[in-house]
Amino acid sequence: MTRSDGRKADQLRSVRMTRGWLDNAEGSVLVEFGRTRVLCAASVTEGVPRWRKGSGLGWVTAEYAMLPRSTNTRSDRESVKGRIGGRTHEISRLVGRSLRGVIDTAALGENTVMVDCDVLQADGGTRTAAITGAYVALQDAVGWMREHGTIGSGEVLGDSVSAVSVGVVDGEPLLDLNYDEDVRAETDMNVVMTGGGTFIEVQGTAEGVPFDRAELDALLDLAGAGCGELAELQKSALAS
Amino acid sequence: MTRSDGRKADQLRSVRMTRGWLDNAEGSVLVEFGRTRVLCAASVTEGVPRWRKGSGLGWVTAEYAMLPRSTNTRSDRESVKGRIGGRTHEISRLVGRSLRGVIDTAALGENTVMVDCDVLQADGGTRTAAITGAYVALQDAVGWMREHGTIGSGEVLGDSVSAVSVGVVDGEPLLDLNYDEDVRAETDMNVVMTGGGTFIEVQGTAEGVPFDRAELDALLDLAGAGCGELAELQKSALAS
Amino acid sequence: MTRSDGRKADQLRSVRMTRGWLDNAEGSVLVEFGRTRVLCAASVTEGVPRWRKGSGLGWVTAEYAMLPRSTNTRSDRESVKGRIGGRTHEISRLVGRSLRGVIDTAALGENTVMVDCDVLQADGGTRTAAITGAYVALQDAVGWMREHGTIGSGEVLGDSVSAVSVGVVDGEPLLDLNYDEDVRAETDMNVVMTGGGTFIEVQGTAEGVPFDRAELDALLDLAGAGCGELAELQKSALAS
Amino acid sequence: MTRSDGRKADQLRSVRMTRGWLDNAEGSVLVEFGRTRVLCAASVTEGVPRWRKGSGLGWVTAEYAMLPRSTNTRSDRESVKGRIGGRTHEISRLVGRSLRGVIDTAALGENTVMVDCDVLQADGGTRTAAITGAYVALQDAVGWMREHGTIGSGEVLGDSVSAVSVGVVDGEPLLDLNYDEDVRAETDMNVVMTGGGTFIEVQGTAEGVPFDRAELDALLDLAGAGCGELAELQKSALAS
Amino acid sequence: MTRSDGRKADQLRSVRMTRGWLDNAEGSVLVEFGRTRVLCAASVTEGVPRWRKGSGLGWVTAEYAMLPRSTNTRSDRESVKGRIGGRTHEISRLVGRSLRGVIDTAALGENTVMVDCDVLQADGGTRTAAITGAYVALQDAVGWMREHGTIGSGEVLGDSVSAVSVGVVDGEPLLDLNYDEDVRAETDMNVVMTGGGTFIEVQGTAEGVPFDRAELDALLDLAGAGCGELAELQKSALAS
Amino acid sequence: MTRSDGRKADQLRSVRMTRGWLDNAEGSVLVEFGRTRVLCAASVTEGVPRWRKGSGLGWVTAEYAMLPRSTNTRSDRESVKGRIGGRTHEISRLVGRSLRGVIDTAALGENTVMVDCDVLQADGGTRTAAITGAYVALQDAVGWMREHGTIGSGEVLGDSVSAVSVGVVDGEPLLDLNYDEDVRAETDMNVVMTGGGTFIEVQGTAEGVPFDRAELDALLDLAGAGCGELAELQKSALAS
Repeated sequence: MTRSDGRKADQLRSVRMTRGWLDNAEGSVLVEFGRTRVLCAASVTEGVPRWRKGSGLGWVTAEYAMLPRSTNTRSDRESVKGRIGGRTHEISRLVGRSLRGVIDTAALGENTVMVDCDVLQADGGTRTAAITGAYVALQDAVGWMREHGTIGSGEVLGDSVSAVSVGVVDGEPLLDLNYDEDVRAETDMNVVMTGGGTFIEVQGTAEGVPFDRAELDALLDLAGAGCGELAELQKSALAS
Repeated sequence: MTRSDGRKADQLRSVRMTRGWLDNAEGSVLVEFGRTRVLCAASVTEGVPRWRKGSGLGWVTAEYAMLPRSTNTRSDRESVKGRIGGRTHEISRLVGRSLRGVIDTAALGENTVMVDCDVLQADGGTRTAAITGAYVALQDAVGWMREHGTIGSGEVLGDSVSAVSVGVVDGEPLLDLNYDEDVRAETDMNVVMTGGGTFIEVQGTAEGVPFDRAELDALLDLAGAGCGELAELQKSALAS
Repeated sequence: MTRSDGRKADQLRSVRMTRGWLDNAEGSVLVEFGRTRVLCAASVTEGVPRWRKGSGLGWVTAEYAMLPRSTNTRSDRESVKGRIGGRTHEISRLVGRSLRGVIDTAALGENTVMVDCDVLQADGGTRTAAITGAYVALQDAVGWMREHGTIGSGEVLGDSVSAVSVGVVDGEPLLDLNYDEDVRAETDMNVVMTGGGTFIEVQGTAEGVPFDRAELDALLDLAGAGCGELAELQKSALAS
Repeated sequence: MTRSDGRKADQLRSVRMTRGWLDNAEGSVLVEFGRTRVLCAASVTEGVPRWRKGSGLGWVTAEYAMLPRSTNTRSDRESVKGRIGGRTHEISRLVGRSLRGVIDTAALGENTVMVDCDVLQADGGTRTAAITGAYVALQDAVGWMREHGTIGSGEVLGDSVSAVSVGVVDGEPLLDLNYDEDVRAETDMNVVMTGGGTFIEVQGTAEGVPFDRAELDALLDLAGAGCGELAELQKSALAS
Repeated sequence: MTRSDGRKADQLRSVRMTRGWLDNAEGSVLVEFGRTRVLCAASVTEGVPRWRKGSGLGWVTAEYAMLPRSTNTRSDRESVKGRIGGRTHEISRLVGRSLRGVIDTAALGENTVMVDCDVLQADGGTRTAAITGAYVALQDAVGWMREHGTIGSGEVLGDSVSAVSVGVVDGEPLLDLNYDEDVRAETDMNVVMTGGGTFIEVQGTAEGVPFDRAELDALLDLAGAGCGELAELQKSALAS
Repeated sequence: MTRSDGRKADQLRSVRMTRGWLDNAEGSVLVEFGRTRVLCAASVTEGVPRWRKGSGLGWVTAEYAMLPRSTNTRSDRESVKGRIGGRTHEISRLVGRSLRGVIDTAALGENTVMVDCDVLQADGGTRTAAITGAYVALQDAVGWMREHGTIGSGEVLGDSVSAVSVGVVDGEPLLDLNYDEDVRAETDMNVVMTGGGTFIEVQGTAEGVPFDRAELDALLDLAGAGCGELAELQKSALAS
């Protein structure tokens, strides 16, 4: 089977991470997975939310949102509607958990990093691109904190974290679905992994017919390889 | 290892499903997983949401919520706060997807079933209890529709659906976590399965350290057995 | 005249109060007036709202709400609509005032009791059932506070409080209207009384034609007898 | 006992009703009960709310609100807070019910009258002044409709409606409480009556100690006389 | 050209300012520009918003709103809609900036004056009437503060501020547009000026065709003369 | 005087307009005024808002928003706060009016163009950059409509529109203020002009001391020249 954009089943789209895309943020990355384009901005503030004060531990959280015309047809702004939708909430929480899966909050001290992931253009895989870019922005924010003496020189991020979507389309497991593939997928899975190859989050959903263990295993294999590649790309981006 | 409530690692809590708990709902079940108590009410209305009109297909959706004092310490009402939290949104969507995974919307015709899952008392596993109970309430609502001639005699629910939580506590995989176990779990997974043993949804999250494939496999095995038992319990409840 | 459920004009529906229905709440009662079923949960917290700090006085307040399918046809959730309706507001305030009518806030010290009254099934008289049950839950919460040393042994609740609805249906004054009677009532009155037989609140409304003093008097007589019976039932429930 | 403003116990404050205070409203009255000043504006629109369409019946409803500096100390605007408070809701509903108590919705045809009651200055009794003024504005709006041929010449308002507050202060029943008396009242009652002397609404609340039947009776007597006077004042205002 | 109300092109409507219209506000004015009627109430509170604390500077801000039936056809309440519209926001901000343009916040000390401008009747020029009246109310509030020792005797308001609308209707520049003129205007401008004849705010908008520099100049001349007259009227009102 | 970035008083920042920045929008431009970066996306939909139906006229409107970390320190999202701030409302309305100032809505037919202006990075002049870019995006959307036969070949945009900020800093009038200049400006003015040199909107505000006619004139001259340059840059961008 050939995919509409000519990729092989186990091939990522072209991935680009442009660091320092914003002049003011402590860390920022424009991450692109093919035509999907997400701006990740990490903001450092002293102090932690009230419920965490005095713990000596830092806090990392995230907010995800889509620009109204990031999609094929325009969506109404959540600010205008006056409420955040369930999908937005769900993804914001997922990004936050993913980052907290690799950060040592004790080493962070009582500081907060908020990572904003704003989707400028959406072509499938926006949440996985967001997580992948957010890690790089967070790494840069940690670097900024170290330079500014906010934190010491100890290890803050024990491992990297990246994410990729996998899915079964026309019976075939595919890596890194674009929007057209995503809407046709029978099963859709988002996998968040560390650079070391362990799982932080696995979310698989049967869109049409339920899936069996063999399909699940095939998808996890595909995702494992994809996250491995993304971890390398993150390393290169951070080295440059 | 003995669990605080004396259960074995692969043992469900005592599960009860009381059908017809409400006099007016087309289907209703009070489902209990140990001390967790969720009231599931299925409401049938003619017609479907606007975006689905004219499709000939029905719609099933769900709303999940917790009473303010279902928990150890009281939580503020979302109605008073004026907005629904991310967790509530997330679980409502999960319950809806789970039910849509087994329903034949063509057989349902252009009718809507809304299943409300209100947690009266929470002791861990509220979302999995909600899904398990919601299926029974939905089955009763389908029965009601058949009796009232809203739908024909064709198969509407091709299979049953149930859900269970599993997690790793102190290194050991456990089935059906209660609240105390849930807060101590290193990995937490919710698994939604059909009566036939296939997956509708798998959501695993590393709460502390990331998990590896072996742990994931052990948890899926445990969940598979648990959902099998729940499917039997649903069958008995519906037979009575 | 015979009522649809066979009761006499001055007869209460079957009233049940199940104490300790929740495991965690400091006081909780499932109160039933016939098919009307309200879960009352009293939550104790140290401290009082800001405007009352330093007064040495405690605070008792209440929130009333209906589950979406407590009614014949499903109502939308107020949390989803993002705003609380006028009726909900009105009843929450009424329940709070009723409880404050019998509590000695000085004896309570600077502690707050919040009583949540959630209607699980509605068949008329939900606000009066809520008040009647809330008093019992509050009494249990006061007992809990005494056991835990939050308050001393002094009298906190000087009297009991209960409530009942009365109305004129087809020209005849009836006690404790169910839903069908309520919609047909020309005049509808909710009366909140102490165990000692004095009034805390009287709310009478002409639904159709205005009522005269004689009708008002007849309704007050009926309500007085009904509240007297309810006070006895509360006493028994608290004694058991 | 002499009241702070020199009135006798059974004496109304000086009442003024200025009709046509607004140039555009179909009916408008600036009503003053002493220093309490409420602007009542009746707006006529063709058609009725959706749930009433096709019934042949009209609809009358009301909205009550206070200007932020109508009170001694400024209150925040409900529009800025983004939600309407319970008291506002409660009074809006009361005013609407009071007007519906005297209107023949069949004679009104499928037209809607919305009466806005905005408190410009508050010195106690704002809700009763609002009802009293709203009736006059409604009468003028009905006149406007008749002139413009929106309705026929049949009787639309079968009777007048007015309201007054009564309360027990220092053990003495007083008519038409001003703000200072209101805060000191042990019992506070709002009574809505027709010109014919029957009741549309009776709302009595024990602010401090519960009240007994004798007090209730005394208050009702006082209110009956007060409403009788107000009905005369309305008649004069409408005649001028 | 004769204007519909007989005025000359450069003539203000009849302007009235009734000071002390409210009994409780520290300053209050009912300002009328023809049929436009705005109630301005200045409320003094000790302290300043959090972001200004410790600065030694005071704060002046304003809120503008329209009663629902101030207009020809009734508008829905923003409190009921749950959100403030853009126009309301815009004008509130304009009034606040205008007042801050003439106040010496150091002389005010850490006190806040909030000026509420509520439009009771709207016939064009509500925002300019609001600014003109708000200044007088503010002046009275400053007087109140001086009398009560909240501030010293130093100059707090260095100059007066007033505002007027101007516009081009049928090619002719007109001063102080009423509603009918306003809807027909090709260009609409609001000008806020000090008593000394300098500008605090100039807001010109082409409603139909864009305007050129000559038109702009003509409008500014007209506005300058109008604000001069208003400054005199303010002076007289404050002297009385 | 030299400006912090070396510009002359009457010199624009480096302006870039990148057309087609989004793959799906009918028109899109990333506009940069120095470090200020705004993404303008024009979305075409058939039909017009309800109040405009049947008029034969089209509609153009705009929404402006800032990403949370477009600024030096992060701002909270308006979607999370649940309400849109006054400044956002004000600027959205300004952009919409500016575009409507040059469009022939009859030639547009009953179609709507919504232009979203999202500030990715803010360094002063975001609203003027938004207007300048929005015009180019709108022109592209009009081209798209023409190609797709949505509209005929007639002139839709009679002229171009651009905007620039001007202000007095340390007594000197400056063109196109960046953020540091903006916060220091005594007077701040935003001017929206057509390519033909006429005005669509003039908004001048005294931030500190009021300004006189001479300053106003100097600022208008400066803005006229700046908008002239911007009109040329728009022409070049649209020609490429």
